[in-house]
Amino acid sequence: MQIYFAGSISGGRDHQAVYLQITELLKNYGQILTEHVASPQLTQMGESALSPSTVYERDISWIKQADMLVAEITKPSLGVGYELAYAESLGKPILCFYNNKLLGENQKVSSMILGNSYITSKPYKNLEQLAGIFEEYFKKGSI
Amino acid sequence: MQIYFAGSISGGRDHQAVYLQITELLKNYGQILTEHVASPQLTQMGESALSPSTVYERDISWIKQADMLVAEITKPSLGVGYELAYAESLGKPILCFYNNKLLGENQKVSSMILGNSYITSKPYKNLEQLAGIFEEYFKKGSI
Repeated sequence: MQIYFAGSISGGRDHQAVYLQITELLKNYGQILTEHVASPQLTQMGESALSPSTVYERDISWIKQADMLVAEITKPSLGVGYELAYAESLGKPILCFYNNKLLGENQKVSSMILGNSYITSKPYKNLEQLAGIFEEYFKKGSI
Repeated sequence: MQIYFAGSISGGRDHQAVYLQITELLKNYGQILTEHVASPQLTQMGESALSPSTVYERDISWIKQADMLVAEITKPSLGVGYELAYAESLGKPILCFYNNKLLGENQKVSSMILGNSYITSKPYKNLEQLAGIFEEYFKKGSI
């Protein structure tokens, strides 16, 4: 299975270390097309050697190729939101999750995601919980 | 003309005052379906009296009804990114703009928006410049 993993790049790299742990977990279930999203070398200035249109065309092509989209949505990101709706328009299965502890008391995940019945959205508190969410999602035939 | 104005809610309300000035400008060109996005009363906890699915269904219905989508994209937002791709999938015209001064030196707008040839994206430095962008966009027959 080919997985498009989405996480914040230009929106901020605060959770990059978490993204790296997540992609390691996800490798148990398929091939990650977007490993650069989790890279400690990638800053919020993005892939500055590539033009925005090159990045856009490549990412759109990866979403089309992917069997599903998996997104860490704790950190608000314009690009991740775009990718979610784009993947939905293609009928790709979508699994999102957000860390309630990192969200903070006065932060909420967008209703455009949580209120969307097409998207599976799960809260998690730590990597162990997330591993359990993956195990249930992938093994119980959600996809 | 009916305009869906998109700006960050759950992603953070730092730019609410700017959203209010923008919707005032936009009223010269049409009716704003989403005036609550600019309201000083609306916090990043969103419309807490409404369930996420109620907000989602209402906003999707407004996007379908709108003649175009206009978005302030300086503040990264999952919901705005979702709305952009959704409006694009329906073939609605999209005008985005971002304030280069508020972006800061180490922040960038997502390549999923700037690299997307379907979306018109413009940088601006102040409200006067933005008024000029609107005048050109709406009067010169972009829509």
